[in-house]
Amino acid sequence: MADEALFQFLHNEVIQYIYKSAEHGEMENGRCISKLENMGFRVGHGLIERFTKDTVRFKDELDVMKFICKDFWTSVFKKQIDNLRTNHQGIYVLQDNKFRLLTQLSAGKQYLEHAPKYLAFTCGLVRGGLSNLGVKSIVTAEVSVMPACKFQVMIQKI
Amino acid sequence: MADEALFQFLHNEVIQYIYKSAEHGEMENGRCISKLENMGFRVGHGLIERFTKDTVRFKDELDVMKFICKDFWTSVFKKQIDNLRTNHQGIYVLQDNKFRLLTQLSAGKQYLEHAPKYLAFTCGLVRGGLSNLGVKSIVTAEVSVMPACKFQVMIQKI
Repeated sequence: MADEALFQFLHNEVIQYIYKSAEHGEMENGRCISKLENMGFRVGHGLIERFTKDTVRFKDELDVMKFICKDFWTSVFKKQIDNLRTNHQGIYVLQDNKFRLLTQLSAGKQYLEHAPKYLAFTCGLVRGGLSNLGVKSIVTAEVSVMPACKFQVMIQKI
Repeated sequence: MADEALFQFLHNEVIQYIYKSAEHGEMENGRCISKLENMGFRVGHGLIERFTKDTVRFKDELDVMKFICKDFWTSVFKKQIDNLRTNHQGIYVLQDNKFRLLTQLSAGKQYLEHAPKYLAFTCGLVRGGLSNLGVKSIVTAEVSVMPACKFQVMIQKI
């Protein structure tokens, strides 16, 4: 629990810091989100290297996605993804019914508009992790009822 | 190990981000350090609240410092402080012979000048933790041989 809190608190500070420095300049919301996403990308890129140090080679793309949903998610968020769906054409939807970085926000609708900034880092985390495994993707997130959320991964065929 | 890496990677990103945004503006090194220190303060302030949730009341200042060196340090850095010294007049020196946030830097002397930015967050962490326990302090750090470092805590009597 301690570790979890450390990451969460630091994550919150980063969000606050980026949004605060945006107030002084004229950085718009989109740029803050993309800064958070980029941070996540680099962290995910580095993390996956450690996590896969001793794993066997992945069979295919689905195998990679399962690794993200199980091992990667558990390491970072202390639980697995609750539901993984795919259209078998390069789109994957990862659903987390109790996403750790949203549980600290009140579940009411009034904070729904703040959800995106709490998801941007994680979108980057997934994209960075996948990228280091050779899978290029675009990752977006959506929330309808907190603290549940869905991450959509669109694989970019090269 | 996974958790450790997550915090470390994010910590590195934060340092890089703050120093990078300083390049664009004219923020000097001192302000970057103080931003990191402030982030650490708020994180430490929050963390200690969780860590002490079920502990008994502290006897005195030394008791508080011991808690920081043992429980707090172990939760955050996976090891205890190696040596705690005090002059019994409000100055404490906490020595960590293998400080986790420095182990990733090469041990050579050529990176010694970069050490302060890797210590600022932790100085704040200690100051924030102490502050929430009612102990006002100034915390500084010094490195002579990496990855060992010393944190000096000067208690501010009120």
